[in-house]
Amino acid sequence: MSLNNYRARVNGCLDAHLSQSSALNENMRYSVLASGKRFRPILTYTAASVFGVDLSQADSCACAVELIHIYSLIHDDLPAMDDDDMRHNQPANHMKFGVGQAILAGDALQALAFDVLTNNDTIKAETRVTLVRQLSNAAFAMAEGQSIDLSIVSKNVEIDLLYSMHRKKTGALLQCAVMLGALLKPDLSHEDRAILTSFSEGIGLAYQVQDDVLDVSTSDAVLGKRQNSDADKDKPTFPSILGMDESIKIYQSLYEKACEDISQLSVDEASLRGLTEKLMSRTY
Amino acid sequence: MSLNNYRARVNGCLDAHLSQSSALNENMRYSVLASGKRFRPILTYTAASVFGVDLSQADSCACAVELIHIYSLIHDDLPAMDDDDMRHNQPANHMKFGVGQAILAGDALQALAFDVLTNNDTIKAETRVTLVRQLSNAAFAMAEGQSIDLSIVSKNVEIDLLYSMHRKKTGALLQCAVMLGALLKPDLSHEDRAILTSFSEGIGLAYQVQDDVLDVSTSDAVLGKRQNSDADKDKPTFPSILGMDESIKIYQSLYEKACEDISQLSVDEASLRGLTEKLMSRTY
Repeated sequence: MSLNNYRARVNGCLDAHLSQSSALNENMRYSVLASGKRFRPILTYTAASVFGVDLSQADSCACAVELIHIYSLIHDDLPAMDDDDMRHNQPANHMKFGVGQAILAGDALQALAFDVLTNNDTIKAETRVTLVRQLSNAAFAMAEGQSIDLSIVSKNVEIDLLYSMHRKKTGALLQCAVMLGALLKPDLSHEDRAILTSFSEGIGLAYQVQDDVLDVSTSDAVLGKRQNSDADKDKPTFPSILGMDESIKIYQSLYEKACEDISQLSVDEASLRGLTEKLMSRTY
Repeated sequence: MSLNNYRARVNGCLDAHLSQSSALNENMRYSVLASGKRFRPILTYTAASVFGVDLSQADSCACAVELIHIYSLIHDDLPAMDDDDMRHNQPANHMKFGVGQAILAGDALQALAFDVLTNNDTIKAETRVTLVRQLSNAAFAMAEGQSIDLSIVSKNVEIDLLYSMHRKKTGALLQCAVMLGALLKPDLSHEDRAILTSFSEGIGLAYQVQDDVLDVSTSDAVLGKRQNSDADKDKPTFPSILGMDESIKIYQSLYEKACEDISQLSVDEASLRGLTEKLMSRTY
């Protein structure tokens, strides 16, 4: 299945989950149904399909991980956090609805993610419990990562701290996106699980290092947000500490290592490899 | 078991859940381990004990519901929300750690609640899925209720909207606290479940109407926060619309009706009735 099909699929599911009347409905829909890249749901669907899992079982995982991602963007953009006014080529949530309502929309989306994740009775209860634990751990790590990010603005930091922060802030949820899809296969072997853990940790970290690079090299219109926002905020990044060339080498070799990892899987990994290559060559 | 024993029990469990090193650890512990009343965990333990559930099974539910409650207090106190500077007789979280880190501590606590809730392997997976759905629905309703609350500042509203808001903002989580404890009994009858649903909805609503009254009648020191904060913010409340006497009658009759409800339970409801009477006579 093509990435566009996956994107359309998750968009339809997200729309359905946000169809009920709610005080926060317009607010949540504004951010959730904006033109996000949907890389996380696409990872979930692809990991599920590699293991022959029916996509109707993967829908709840794909939506849940995207809902967590969108809530984190709403909160990260707030004036007290990264203070970004644009997201997905439209005003940030708080610019449209005010800071208080933006905080609440994010809060509600996190709760909704756990509701959606557990609301598929065709998935065994044991599996759903495992999925909740994966997602809650990733969401927790994400908040920790953002906390570190906030605390190091205008500071000189060691590259090791940046590695650790990127793993938590962005890596944990991307890793979770892959693992949720794969864990839907109830008898996933220990070997395949270990391979996917290494693979998904690698691409999660690579993705954020690449984000640091793209923030320098890509225009506002293509990013859908402000270019050079890290430098403008005096945030330490991979390019600011190691330079652009070295940073590009790092994320490329992480993606390449991830592709090597999955060549050991017990199933045909072609679609997961193809997606990883697409991520490596993304420009926004 | 006495309320103080339940309080000590949940405090010990919460402390243990926040013992791991984390960027947000000091921040989360500051609010979670402050001198909260722990009414929600006490409700959970009491409901569980009425049905003969071992308290070791109720710990995860008691903690999860309190973690959601504390996260909501941190976010509600923010300048863009209720802008309260004191909570539990100490500076509000954002006064101590800054707005950005306070938002993140709340976010992390919500994620932690779902982790804690599912991290007890002695509870059947089917039951844990039910618990997650109850808690996620309550947490979602709570955010909706706060959204309505923010939106009606300085407005004239009908009492029906206030009923609906109180049910969501405060009632849903108090109801959830009771239901989580009771649902730990795997073969809870439909009749008992329906009775508890009505009971917990009643005390949830009563509790918030009573909060409106106490905000007018109780001093800062006893409340642990500012007296008259609702009136100072020009928030419509039960006393501002219906007057103090009528508001007191409403919450008292809601508590009395709740006590009638549970007299129909198939088990000895004495401890739940005793707790309800304690809630009715609380002064903070």
